[in-house]
Amino acid sequence: MYNTKAYAAFSASDSLQPFHIERRELRDNDILIDILFCGVCHSDIHTAKNDWHSTKYPVVPGHEIIGRVQKIGKKVSHFNIDDIVGVGCMVDSCQTCTSCQKGLEQYCLNGFTGTYNGKDKISGAYTFGGYSDKIVVQENFVLRIPQNLDIAGAAPLLCAGITTWSPLKNWNVKTNDHVGIIGLGGLGHMAIKLAHAMGAKVTMITTSPQKGKDAKRLGADDILISTDKEAMKSAYMKFDFLLNTIPVKHDANPYIHLLKTDGTMVFVGAIEPIEPIHMGLLIGKRRNIGASLIGGIKETQEMLDFCGEHNITSDIEIISIQDINQAYERIVKNEVKYRFVIDMNSLKQENKE
Amino acid sequence: MYNTKAYAAFSASDSLQPFHIERRELRDNDILIDILFCGVCHSDIHTAKNDWHSTKYPVVPGHEIIGRVQKIGKKVSHFNIDDIVGVGCMVDSCQTCTSCQKGLEQYCLNGFTGTYNGKDKISGAYTFGGYSDKIVVQENFVLRIPQNLDIAGAAPLLCAGITTWSPLKNWNVKTNDHVGIIGLGGLGHMAIKLAHAMGAKVTMITTSPQKGKDAKRLGADDILISTDKEAMKSAYMKFDFLLNTIPVKHDANPYIHLLKTDGTMVFVGAIEPIEPIHMGLLIGKRRNIGASLIGGIKETQEMLDFCGEHNITSDIEIISIQDINQAYERIVKNEVKYRFVIDMNSLKQENKE
Repeated sequence: MYNTKAYAAFSASDSLQPFHIERRELRDNDILIDILFCGVCHSDIHTAKNDWHSTKYPVVPGHEIIGRVQKIGKKVSHFNIDDIVGVGCMVDSCQTCTSCQKGLEQYCLNGFTGTYNGKDKISGAYTFGGYSDKIVVQENFVLRIPQNLDIAGAAPLLCAGITTWSPLKNWNVKTNDHVGIIGLGGLGHMAIKLAHAMGAKVTMITTSPQKGKDAKRLGADDILISTDKEAMKSAYMKFDFLLNTIPVKHDANPYIHLLKTDGTMVFVGAIEPIEPIHMGLLIGKRRNIGASLIGGIKETQEMLDFCGEHNITSDIEIISIQDINQAYERIVKNEVKYRFVIDMNSLKQENKE
Repeated sequence: MYNTKAYAAFSASDSLQPFHIERRELRDNDILIDILFCGVCHSDIHTAKNDWHSTKYPVVPGHEIIGRVQKIGKKVSHFNIDDIVGVGCMVDSCQTCTSCQKGLEQYCLNGFTGTYNGKDKISGAYTFGGYSDKIVVQENFVLRIPQNLDIAGAAPLLCAGITTWSPLKNWNVKTNDHVGIIGLGGLGHMAIKLAHAMGAKVTMITTSPQKGKDAKRLGADDILISTDKEAMKSAYMKFDFLLNTIPVKHDANPYIHLLKTDGTMVFVGAIEPIEPIHMGLLIGKRRNIGASLIGGIKETQEMLDFCGEHNITSDIEIISIQDINQAYERIVKNEVKYRFVIDMNSLKQENKE
């Protein structure tokens, strides 16, 4: 067992506090990872606050993990000591169902094991995430990080990156396609970078004119202010594909007008009922509504390799683990551009002086 | 000009009454059709009652037209006198836009011309539909009816048939796919027949246990009563494809549970806002919502030829034009199995004795 430091939430109302956890002894295919950085995802907050009514306390959030291989199990064949690796939202799945066989572990018919608040398929113990100094993960769920990438900025690729990459690839976004990214937060800013690097003509669609400049810096060709009725009219039927990253309930009908015939809007943000969709808007142009959850392990590696080739990382603000509760408050107020990443050295040094 | 008899609605509140209209002289590519039968579609009622706030009175409904070629324009090359032909929901489109070029005239970027309540692209006159003894239509929008088909039963293929065929083909329904048809009315009963003939495993999904027997006769392999919670649970993730023919606002979330990963539910009935969709149900399994409008001319001919090969027609009740107002009442009460078809001889004989 590895005695490790962590930060955990102990109830929905308390702030995160220091916690000690035991990580399991290495099974034959396991890797012990010394965590260097961990991104802070909005899901971490939802889970810490039990917004989805499924939190098992104490919970150690964090599923955008970058670290260094410290030790490997007997049968680990694809990783070596000191490799820089990543762990995303999943640490296991059945690996035998039709979804897993297709490399879609996120849709595992037997349920994937979340990196935190999941249930280990062997021991039955709840999993603890990346707000910690070490983690043990089986090698099938460990990703390689391209050497040229800034490793702190690479952390959010493991969740925000793959969550936007997977739908862009699955719905076959191509060079010169008109792609609209709705909402400029952690997901939206990654979507702009990735779609731009794929060669798409990218429009940032946002309510906030002040986000325009930033969107262009990130790679957007164009900005569409969704509260500007004339601008929305002139973008009627402009888009082949829309990625909707708005994280809360909203009226998506104004965006449907923007889709071409056979166009698709994919939701990756709102995990709740949205305002009634007018089916006439879909019927009249054979438009589609889709939705997508993170991404499979194979495609996560493909995304990381693509980011290596195009030198894409997330725009981040590095924080200490001791700042995590203030960071949560700022995320809720949408005051981060565009992702907090915890430097885990701050945890390792805690109480050392 | 051809002086023709018809039945028209003169306001939203009045019943349909006899009416005389002039059909245009044949343009070079036009065909004069002697109408033999015309199906009664729910859209006819919506238009007569101005439910969609777009009716230009007087309106002559009817877009499931079967007739005999009586006269052809100088340049008509694909039809001969006495051919048995059909006319569906469209009588013109721009024929030059990207949609028309793909054979998707129903999504014409310049707007297709409806068979009734549409505006002729040349004269600007409003079009009059098939509750009439004759109609003039350009040959590109005239379909061939396979000789072996009962011509009265073939009439509803021109709207109910193509409206269900087009999505089954567009979403690539294949042999042994599990297909669920939601709602057993005019559209639903055609969908069962077509999906069954395509080799799919067809389940009729309905609130009414008494519709079960009929669905099996029509070709359904299985019946799922949507009010039976246990049955719905056991059909969780059973279907590759769902065709939702429910014609009114409803809660579609219980049906989304029935879709496999990457499965799609396509709406062809409700042209209005539906109850809020829970995006979590889509996200969790990358499920899709689509929608579809009638079908293009080329695929309508393919559907008719397929129906010829498989001897598929609609289950109909033949009525006289003089019964049209009672028929509307019965349709609104859902008391028809499954389509009324007007024998146009009743109009031709009117006031003759």
